[in-house]
Amino acid sequence: MTSFQMSAKEEMLEKFLDAASRGDLSQMSTLLSSVPSLLNQTGHNGWTALMFAARNGHYHVAETLLSHGCDKFSVNGSSQTAYDIAKFWGHRHISNLLSGTDDGCRRILPTSDLNQQENFFSRETLDRLSEKRTDAGWLEAKQSDSDTVYLLFSNLNPMISCSLEEETAGEATRLCRFRYDDVKDLLQKEATVLIFIGVEKKKKPSSSSQTEGSIWDPPAWFAVGTDEDAAELLKRCREKSCSFPKTPNRDLLKLSEEEAGVVAQARSVLAWHSRYSFCPTCGSSTKLEEGGYKRSCLNADCRSLKGVHNTCYPRVDPVVIMLVIHPDGNQCLLGRKKVFPPGMFSCLAGFIEPGETMEEAVRRESEEESGVKVGPVQYVSCQPWPMPSSLMIGCMAVAMSTDIKVDENEIEEARWFPRQQVIDSLFRGSSPNFSVPPRQTIAHQLIRHWIGMNSNL
Amino acid sequence: MTSFQMSAKEEMLEKFLDAASRGDLSQMSTLLSSVPSLLNQTGHNGWTALMFAARNGHYHVAETLLSHGCDKFSVNGSSQTAYDIAKFWGHRHISNLLSGTDDGCRRILPTSDLNQQENFFSRETLDRLSEKRTDAGWLEAKQSDSDTVYLLFSNLNPMISCSLEEETAGEATRLCRFRYDDVKDLLQKEATVLIFIGVEKKKKPSSSSQTEGSIWDPPAWFAVGTDEDAAELLKRCREKSCSFPKTPNRDLLKLSEEEAGVVAQARSVLAWHSRYSFCPTCGSSTKLEEGGYKRSCLNADCRSLKGVHNTCYPRVDPVVIMLVIHPDGNQCLLGRKKVFPPGMFSCLAGFIEPGETMEEAVRRESEEESGVKVGPVQYVSCQPWPMPSSLMIGCMAVAMSTDIKVDENEIEEARWFPRQQVIDSLFRGSSPNFSVPPRQTIAHQLIRHWIGMNSNL
Ligand SMILES: [Zn+2]
Ligand SMILES: [Zn+2]
Repeated sequence: MTSFQMSAKEEMLEKFLDAASRGDLSQMSTLLSSVPSLLNQTGHNGWTALMFAARNGHYHVAETLLSHGCDKFSVNGSSQTAYDIAKFWGHRHISNLLSGTDDGCRRILPTSDLNQQENFFSRETLDRLSEKRTDAGWLEAKQSDSDTVYLLFSNLNPMISCSLEEETAGEATRLCRFRYDDVKDLLQKEATVLIFIGVEKKKKPSSSSQTEGSIWDPPAWFAVGTDEDAAELLKRCREKSCSFPKTPNRDLLKLSEEEAGVVAQARSVLAWHSRYSFCPTCGSSTKLEEGGYKRSCLNADCRSLKGVHNTCYPRVDPVVIMLVIHPDGNQCLLGRKKVFPPGMFSCLAGFIEPGETMEEAVRRESEEESGVKVGPVQYVSCQPWPMPSSLMIGCMAVAMSTDIKVDENEIEEARWFPRQQVIDSLFRGSSPNFSVPPRQTIAHQLIRHWIGMNSNL
Repeated sequence: MTSFQMSAKEEMLEKFLDAASRGDLSQMSTLLSSVPSLLNQTGHNGWTALMFAARNGHYHVAETLLSHGCDKFSVNGSSQTAYDIAKFWGHRHISNLLSGTDDGCRRILPTSDLNQQENFFSRETLDRLSEKRTDAGWLEAKQSDSDTVYLLFSNLNPMISCSLEEETAGEATRLCRFRYDDVKDLLQKEATVLIFIGVEKKKKPSSSSQTEGSIWDPPAWFAVGTDEDAAELLKRCREKSCSFPKTPNRDLLKLSEEEAGVVAQARSVLAWHSRYSFCPTCGSSTKLEEGGYKRSCLNADCRSLKGVHNTCYPRVDPVVIMLVIHPDGNQCLLGRKKVFPPGMFSCLAGFIEPGETMEEAVRRESEEESGVKVGPVQYVSCQPWPMPSSLMIGCMAVAMSTDIKVDENEIEEARWFPRQQVIDSLFRGSSPNFSVPPRQTIAHQLIRHWIGMNSNL
């Protein structure tokens, strides 16, 4: 890229942000249609077009930007989202638009902060259509349908392809999608696990040759877990850039929000099959049923066959993850495990135990891991974490004591971090001495939530 | 009871409520010490002493009532709690006292409704002291300690005793507590499962003969699961009123909040042992470890022994339970299952699936069970439900559509109920045509939360 192109791009961005700021919908739309990547670009101090529209009360500009899929959660250099800005400047119609809820909802749930964070791995890209899991005829027909999408998993990880994106000049990681003909030999093998993960949601006209006037039949998606050699599986792909991630908790974070949502579901169910192929009640073998969402004991006398038992259904492990705030309101408690990269600190976390509420689990885990006693606890948002099958329940909590005494079996170090140090790390890049987990983690989002909650323009 | 006594009691109550209302701490305390049952009694329109103190801003009266353990969540005939009343009349020091949080916490978590409902089965009566689970020496010493409390479970249910209470003229259900000598023969048997559930929390002086000046060593509690004949087990008890509940989801609701919290933990862990005695990964037998919180595979080659696997730890199943509110704000959606008592309707509910957030689970289950589409979802509170080991995550949700189409496999009927009909059922007694679940259920508390949320004095 030459320096001339560079400044032409900069000029374009300036015009674009200026149009959003003035409420010039037509100029903004023209610029956006010729250079779509302007959508989320930022000018001085990290302001996006959406933020300028929110600042100056231009409802239709904000609406148009949202309809193009712009990121409403990004924050400027003062840690504000467009929503924060609209709220501060009293443009209520825009703050309501940005929080995705109308006045009616606010009236019905008045105490609620309905502007909820969407976390990575959380998007429901497909409609699970769970009632079809017991419809063997429908499932069978879908399997051989030419529109059906298959994802291949080896050792619980999906085959992905990495390619260079022209537009963003960055790497793009995508799931490799297969058709029935590509995988039908695999489906015959006994060790193969087939999971029906859902059908596509968007009601767009199908490209396939359907009878005129018929209702659109959304393509189904299946996940295929196999014990085939990974190298053999990769030969099924024409592209050279395909691979199976070696470090899923890093590599899977590069997927788009849409594909991450699909993987969250598929990987968790496959992990369950891999760990729960025998009946825990009697030790017998089990068979897969209901599109991959049930395992039934093959021992006809087993009591797991009488009534409904959780042994037959996928396991989801609820975990609390909490940002504990100092009683002075200006420091947060973060800890590090030995396995973390150098300098990285994160929120404390732990599994919810039987007979425990999430609030009590936050209090118990905080005290066990760090010695810090916790009072009020507030739920913020949650995140499915498919390594293997956790539901991370994210909370803010207020400390009632401040002395730290770490449980060295759990964490290596825990410390109170001042707000400014956290802001610096979030927005001015990480230092070798202190960084927080990447934005795809709920830990990062909880930290950002705290910074945003108390910010001033 | 004669009619003279009756009116003497009524007069006492009137004096008591009047003292609270005037802020006469000394008269109120005198009355309370002579008749402790006055604490939660109600006068006209369901007003308690705490409500009168809240109405008139008498902080020390409210504080004293709370220190005696009065029920701060009870509501008057207008569906207000004492907290609602204090807030409405601007007595902020009292509303903060009642919400259990000081101003500092409100500054740190400004968006939070920190006045959180405590649900039945939620109280952490004991300190779990999980770090002692791996301390075999400590556990062994505690087992034979004369202060240690043992609870006996048969077929997952605890031995309970029912007796008539003089004070409340009602029935009281209590856990039967045993000492080491009562159960040491059982502990020798191979089929017996022993769970360490924690130590007592309150730092009160021990009644046992300890060395002078020693630190108080809190009594430990264990749950004993046995396959002994129930009739044989009952012989261990001197009282005739002892039994094992036949319908745990009704009988266990009669326990006190304290004992219900203990049972929530113990029953869930015992249920896990009963269902998961074989390794789900390889089908081998397993052995119990870590005070009953771990099962390890006996097959030395099993991959569940390499690294940490959820197969070795108790399972907790997260469930969403939601009160869906009509877009008009004045009706709520309730459904009934065939197994419910006639006329009873409850909140919709369902298990969270792998790869799903709680908010998405609320949306999916609402639409699957009732056909009603849901928009914003707000977490309210949660409840452990030990039949066998669920965590009920209670939410409010706003409907985006109103047509009902029930999934007949799940529920028999679903309907929109007007607010007034729900209030009548909650506070004026249930009718044969419509009732809601009992107050110990989170369904009841969610319904009450909705009524309280929008109430006007
Ligand atoms: Zn079995
Ligand atoms: Zn095993």
